[in-house]
Amino acid sequence: MFNGTVPAAPFSFTPGVRRGLARTGVIATPHGPIRTPAFIPVGTKATVKALLPEATAALGAQAVLANAYHLYLQPGADIVDAAGGLGAFMHWPGPTFTDSGGFQVMSLGVGFKKVLAMASDGVTSDDVIAPGHDRLAHVDDDGVGFISHLDGSRHRFTPESSMAVQHQLGADIIFAFDECTTLMNTRDYQERSVARTAAWARRCLAAHAELTEQRSHRPYQALFGVVQGAQYEDLRRAAARDLGGLPFDGYGIGGALEKAQLGTIVGWVSEALPEDRPRHLLGIGEPDDLFAGVAAGADTFDCVMPSRVARNGAILHHDGRYNIATAANRRAFEPLDAECDCYTCAHYTRAYLHHLAKADEIAGHTLATIHNVRFLVRLVDRMREALEAGDFDALREEFLGRYGARRRAAGR
Amino acid sequence: MFNGTVPAAPFSFTPGVRRGLARTGVIATPHGPIRTPAFIPVGTKATVKALLPEATAALGAQAVLANAYHLYLQPGADIVDAAGGLGAFMHWPGPTFTDSGGFQVMSLGVGFKKVLAMASDGVTSDDVIAPGHDRLAHVDDDGVGFISHLDGSRHRFTPESSMAVQHQLGADIIFAFDECTTLMNTRDYQERSVARTAAWARRCLAAHAELTEQRSHRPYQALFGVVQGAQYEDLRRAAARDLGGLPFDGYGIGGALEKAQLGTIVGWVSEALPEDRPRHLLGIGEPDDLFAGVAAGADTFDCVMPSRVARNGAILHHDGRYNIATAANRRAFEPLDAECDCYTCAHYTRAYLHHLAKADEIAGHTLATIHNVRFLVRLVDRMREALEAGDFDALREEFLGRYGARRRAAGR
Repeated sequence: MFNGTVPAAPFSFTPGVRRGLARTGVIATPHGPIRTPAFIPVGTKATVKALLPEATAALGAQAVLANAYHLYLQPGADIVDAAGGLGAFMHWPGPTFTDSGGFQVMSLGVGFKKVLAMASDGVTSDDVIAPGHDRLAHVDDDGVGFISHLDGSRHRFTPESSMAVQHQLGADIIFAFDECTTLMNTRDYQERSVARTAAWARRCLAAHAELTEQRSHRPYQALFGVVQGAQYEDLRRAAARDLGGLPFDGYGIGGALEKAQLGTIVGWVSEALPEDRPRHLLGIGEPDDLFAGVAAGADTFDCVMPSRVARNGAILHHDGRYNIATAANRRAFEPLDAECDCYTCAHYTRAYLHHLAKADEIAGHTLATIHNVRFLVRLVDRMREALEAGDFDALREEFLGRYGARRRAAGR
Repeated sequence: MFNGTVPAAPFSFTPGVRRGLARTGVIATPHGPIRTPAFIPVGTKATVKALLPEATAALGAQAVLANAYHLYLQPGADIVDAAGGLGAFMHWPGPTFTDSGGFQVMSLGVGFKKVLAMASDGVTSDDVIAPGHDRLAHVDDDGVGFISHLDGSRHRFTPESSMAVQHQLGADIIFAFDECTTLMNTRDYQERSVARTAAWARRCLAAHAELTEQRSHRPYQALFGVVQGAQYEDLRRAAARDLGGLPFDGYGIGGALEKAQLGTIVGWVSEALPEDRPRHLLGIGEPDDLFAGVAAGADTFDCVMPSRVARNGAILHHDGRYNIATAANRRAFEPLDAECDCYTCAHYTRAYLHHLAKADEIAGHTLATIHNVRFLVRLVDRMREALEAGDFDALREEFLGRYGARRRAAGR
């Protein structure tokens, strides 16, 4: 797996046990297998922030997910290509994903967030992604024009250019270029957007087939279609049936997901998608959302949350999140979480991480990231084991009963 | 060495081969041996910036040096003590040093630098470390009053309190509290300062003996006296003879060292110090200075330079320093230095580190630090091997001939 040779089997998904919509399985890629369900750490710019690849592997990560938008802008997809692709560039020998960049282009354009509290304020507005106005991005039927958040330069992504970029990046699993809406868009806009994403999906498949042939000396890249449709059952089911009939290697589930509805929406999609292909729930990583996603049939997950909050000193703990910088940890000569099996918890105390956080030392970011990412990787690993053992519901009840307790007690 | 038990032999120095003033040797500490000459990486605040301890060990570091001033202020020496001492606190199982904090207190007070270009401007001023004025520190015969650079709180270090702090920190090798002058001080002030440091050395020895007895359950801590005297041969030789007659376990060579004079000054001190005790040249790490120091009889060295410049993208190379962020490295798919044997050079390209530097990613700091610190650790290791083989002068000529060439060609 670490020697850079290309195995014979290009890509496959082998379902394992099934419990309702939930299931286990194995995704085979040219750079090794991924046992599912699995949490995939994010390395947006070809580095899992604050970690060297050996640390990412040691905490149990089976793959990493980078972002086509960010790498297109910096250092440029041609440079990653010339380096031998994403894995070689970043010294990660295992499986890799790239997100298409659609979400990033549009979210950087309008500043929206993935799981939207915004919906509850009742605002309905389509112009957040409409052309004109003072936006960094605008969508039309051909693609998305956008302005770089780095230097203000103008760019354009289309389904074809996204495929070209993702082939240059060379990840094992790539995503179709989709339009990502928000809960603020009208029903009418969501309908037109799903139709646009469906048309783009076909253009992605055609471009992908051509690029795959042109670059047949490279390891096979699996293309995942992305199911949108916001909170509308009919739109989600129709999109899943439509894309499910196309020759995608797997599927992403994207877009606006209200937290309370997350499991329901993923369930609609899972029911309509083919059984024999893997499903990736894009950008989701809170423990309760991971349980809901697995229960509803999602196989893999990615999220920046565990590493992003780590760099602010937030520590994931079986009794809920806490901040290492608070005075209570100054003399706490105990691990971050006594039930954790990570490198950080094995060798360091809260007092040491408190000191590093106060001193703003890089090692503090590294150690907290190792712990937080391990926490989620292990949590989803435990879900997989629980599915195999048939006690997923018991794990969910026990874990979430404790995890939420501290936060509820504090009235947060 | 990694199991935290206390070996029987407390501390010793065994000289090896001798070539003029230069020599090899082995320092034995309760946490393992240090083969000398050796470059000791700095972990000012109980972390080698941007590295986990395993990376520091993997790059060949035999020990790390932390700073009593910084750890006294944050997190507090009592906390490091309660954690089991510096090594246990930071998960570094090997030998440790702490600098006394004298230099930091005074340099933070007046903002002077170790190797002083300042001297060349002809300014003579004693008040830079005199009481009053708008300084963060002032010295009197009893000790140093200073204001924390972190929160403005008032503190005082004396020889006794420095020993108490360094016993709480628990490093294997600690330094006497000394007054560190600059090249701007008058001859008259330097004389009075050397006399003050001599008096403080005796007070440190007395406090150290008492603390060692009180804390006999802890591993033995070796105390090094610090030889000052600026650029004056008679003051340096007299200080070395005086301290050399006292029961210190070894010696630090500190204070103002003009670069052109460095070898000469260290030579005066080495000639006057006893042969059977190790000599640490404080805060020196430029390659030419390391050669000069080894040639003049220094055994160990510490310096923040390799890690500090790494975080600004400066890369040490056999042909001289360069910056990874320059455009020339954007497409350079070669190691940082083809002759380097470090982890970074084995697995990553200049193009990747260029990308990480441009993207301001933490992994860029980590990888550049690994390379730069390895560069100096290995350089001094090679000096040790060359002393054993009898070809130190050839190594010095060959290395410095190349290392300086690029810089000279660029007119820097």
